[in-house]
Amino acid sequence: MTWASIDLNADLGEGFGHWRLTDDEQLLSVVTSANVACGFHAGDAVTMRRVCRLAADRSVRIGAQVSYRDLAGFGRRAMEVPADELAAEVAYQIGALEVFARAAGSRVSYVKPHGALYNRVVHDEEQAAAVIEGVLLSGERLPLLGLPGSRLHAMAEKAGLPVITEAFADRAYTDDGRLVPRREEGAVIADPAAVVERSVSMARFGTVTARSGAHVAVRAKSLCLHGDTPGAVSLARRVRRELEAAGVRVEPFV
Amino acid sequence: MTWASIDLNADLGEGFGHWRLTDDEQLLSVVTSANVACGFHAGDAVTMRRVCRLAADRSVRIGAQVSYRDLAGFGRRAMEVPADELAAEVAYQIGALEVFARAAGSRVSYVKPHGALYNRVVHDEEQAAAVIEGVLLSGERLPLLGLPGSRLHAMAEKAGLPVITEAFADRAYTDDGRLVPRREEGAVIADPAAVVERSVSMARFGTVTARSGAHVAVRAKSLCLHGDTPGAVSLARRVRRELEAAGVRVEPFV
Amino acid sequence: MTWASIDLNADLGEGFGHWRLTDDEQLLSVVTSANVACGFHAGDAVTMRRVCRLAADRSVRIGAQVSYRDLAGFGRRAMEVPADELAAEVAYQIGALEVFARAAGSRVSYVKPHGALYNRVVHDEEQAAAVIEGVLLSGERLPLLGLPGSRLHAMAEKAGLPVITEAFADRAYTDDGRLVPRREEGAVIADPAAVVERSVSMARFGTVTARSGAHVAVRAKSLCLHGDTPGAVSLARRVRRELEAAGVRVEPFV
Amino acid sequence: MTWASIDLNADLGEGFGHWRLTDDEQLLSVVTSANVACGFHAGDAVTMRRVCRLAADRSVRIGAQVSYRDLAGFGRRAMEVPADELAAEVAYQIGALEVFARAAGSRVSYVKPHGALYNRVVHDEEQAAAVIEGVLLSGERLPLLGLPGSRLHAMAEKAGLPVITEAFADRAYTDDGRLVPRREEGAVIADPAAVVERSVSMARFGTVTARSGAHVAVRAKSLCLHGDTPGAVSLARRVRRELEAAGVRVEPFV
Repeated sequence: MTWASIDLNADLGEGFGHWRLTDDEQLLSVVTSANVACGFHAGDAVTMRRVCRLAADRSVRIGAQVSYRDLAGFGRRAMEVPADELAAEVAYQIGALEVFARAAGSRVSYVKPHGALYNRVVHDEEQAAAVIEGVLLSGERLPLLGLPGSRLHAMAEKAGLPVITEAFADRAYTDDGRLVPRREEGAVIADPAAVVERSVSMARFGTVTARSGAHVAVRAKSLCLHGDTPGAVSLARRVRRELEAAGVRVEPFV
Repeated sequence: MTWASIDLNADLGEGFGHWRLTDDEQLLSVVTSANVACGFHAGDAVTMRRVCRLAADRSVRIGAQVSYRDLAGFGRRAMEVPADELAAEVAYQIGALEVFARAAGSRVSYVKPHGALYNRVVHDEEQAAAVIEGVLLSGERLPLLGLPGSRLHAMAEKAGLPVITEAFADRAYTDDGRLVPRREEGAVIADPAAVVERSVSMARFGTVTARSGAHVAVRAKSLCLHGDTPGAVSLARRVRRELEAAGVRVEPFV
Repeated sequence: MTWASIDLNADLGEGFGHWRLTDDEQLLSVVTSANVACGFHAGDAVTMRRVCRLAADRSVRIGAQVSYRDLAGFGRRAMEVPADELAAEVAYQIGALEVFARAAGSRVSYVKPHGALYNRVVHDEEQAAAVIEGVLLSGERLPLLGLPGSRLHAMAEKAGLPVITEAFADRAYTDDGRLVPRREEGAVIADPAAVVERSVSMARFGTVTARSGAHVAVRAKSLCLHGDTPGAVSLARRVRRELEAAGVRVEPFV
Repeated sequence: MTWASIDLNADLGEGFGHWRLTDDEQLLSVVTSANVACGFHAGDAVTMRRVCRLAADRSVRIGAQVSYRDLAGFGRRAMEVPADELAAEVAYQIGALEVFARAAGSRVSYVKPHGALYNRVVHDEEQAAAVIEGVLLSGERLPLLGLPGSRLHAMAEKAGLPVITEAFADRAYTDDGRLVPRREEGAVIADPAAVVERSVSMARFGTVTARSGAHVAVRAKSLCLHGDTPGAVSLARRVRRELEAAGVRVEPFV
């Protein structure tokens, strides 16, 4: 099985006030979908506005990267948030970003949970339902970007929301196509050449070499590029260049 | 000069998380315009959602009560916020509220600066311009509710935004129709009967008895009722009842 | 077994900025130990200073009521906080309160985890260890106030920290002396007379009538009074009066 | 007039959670006084603990860099904070830092206001008095590090607090020994060689070349080095090396 095209997404606008994290401008020349932080784990209003303008100028899709309210922990602390609070907080973040997306002549086109919330809704039905409720509150049937096989995706489809699957070229996979947990050895692939090769393999054939050496299917419409590591921008550029050289169209998911 | 009708506005949803301040449900049965806190000085997402629902159910207009980012000071600390930050933060707040207003079948229909920002834009052109820019970012020509004669109103009109003037029945006025500063004696009128009488006078004749005893013109399309004082709800009810008894139509501003 | 004396503790200073929750002044005339919020779930610096002064004036012990960093959730959202962060945050809160306790001529005399953290350290060894590390960072061997039988207490004793057990006169107990979970029916005892009777029974005999009707031992040096419910102050006063009438000395734990 | 010795201070620990700003470890090998952020404009508890340990290991003095509560604005937004709130917030920050300083075997040895508060107390007597009250609340007669000729220093001396004057080798001075405001051209001196030369001149002779070319006296016991600019660490190292080469003892102020 081959994929004619692939989307590239990255987390952007993840500074706050005086602090910067990602090179938003450079990354926006590479990706086709921008997961914009909405102020709960990162992202102030000025940054949101700026990233939306830059994204719209480059025809990059704008997505709401929604999070637990946790600036101190960068949204990486799992939290027991009551469902009504989580749903309302997701809607709040989408609404705040929508202003800047529209002012830039674009729209919020999808939603991607961040950090601990991302991991939680893979298996937690209550929080997954709350995220979906938050999206529905926004009044748009926005696609949910996330892990294939997650509870979030299963429940979103039942609720009539589109889902966009993503894969990680810099993460090891198990034989059944799941991510090797970060705490295990070899979970993160540091070698740029390997990341590039895996990106092309995932995009062209929908497969990747698992940790065991087996070839496993990884169904994904989007590849997630990391923007906060040293060399992130140049690696992202190289991935895109090699994808295009291999005949893959790099374009926003439909 | 008589006014056929008057709008009644009050600050609502000014709790945060576990804390409550105003009896939103009761006040929503009295006012015609609800200034809903948007999370920067007060107002969490659950409260915003709830107040928007209650307001929409009662056909009460929903306004964005925008503030400096200052939970600890309840938005009452004047702040030197750079214009680009203030504009973006105003837009952020409007967008966040808009989600809940729309989900309730309504819309954000106006904007009212809160606390220290309200006082600042009476005279500060830079911050007034930033508030207006924030409103324009939202993509809607939302009216700005505020003090007659303020720089905000003068500049909003130039920018093509409608303005809604408001008056305070529980505040003393000077001979030139300005509010007596709070720090001066007699600035706040505590006697409920006097507040009711002044409300009717303002609504019917557009005048009020100034501190000096003179009758002064107070042009206002809306009266601001305070919701966070003891007896606030019963006073608000009495004001509305007496206005209606005096033949004033209590209805949202046009 | 009878107890010659009992300590009464309550959560105080749980407002934030413009918001108030408890009637600190009245409660401080009843309790012997004040669990003062330190700014992470509630409690601003002005309130902390004021409560410490009032407590010192009344010879009420000052304790640091430490919490997850969660103003929006009032510290009631369980959080996966890395141990090093939790330990440092506990120490930070104790240090901040210590300033005001000393300025009032007193000292921080104990530590009580709040809300979700309180519940977590009953069973979670990693977070219990982090709380203990935070206390040790403060340089004082401060007692830990909490549930009898908790992991926190077991581990604190190993670390050489005193522990103070507490009981709840307004909560139902199981036959093995544990609290009936709040979500179960009858978990909270609303009848003031019953609360008073149970307080006296716990203080004099170290026993309470369990939900089943059995008499169970509840070993506690302190009774926790709730300050944020309607009638809280008058109930607290009544509890204290009846304890004294029954010959129980109401005094700070040793 | 020559100075036998000079102190070097820098702002440290100015990250927050996931965000980093300064290379604390490297700067701590250069400076003799560390202005540690205390959580209000920057600085989380883990960072405060780490910086205190590193500082104590290197015998670097630990100072509390106190700020308005303003994470979003990095403490650079001037704020009208009521005096009682400001005093309590200053004390809160000192107390929080003191825990980590003591745990590292050191103490908070001085206080330096940050950003907008630093600028404000140069001329504002109410806020200067509040800062002094906050320091006194801490129970220690901590020196205040700041601008020579500031109201803060004049009032601190009256209150019996020591003052430490500081100068800036990378800022232009007027003929009367004041800083050229940042908004004016030439206010900041970018040339490293000039910064080094001015440092030596200030430390050895207590003079500097003003913008006009005149030699003006700049009385300072401490030089402030900036840690958040590109090349900051190497410039700081060079300043220290050249000071020592010129026979200046680089050591903490007395």
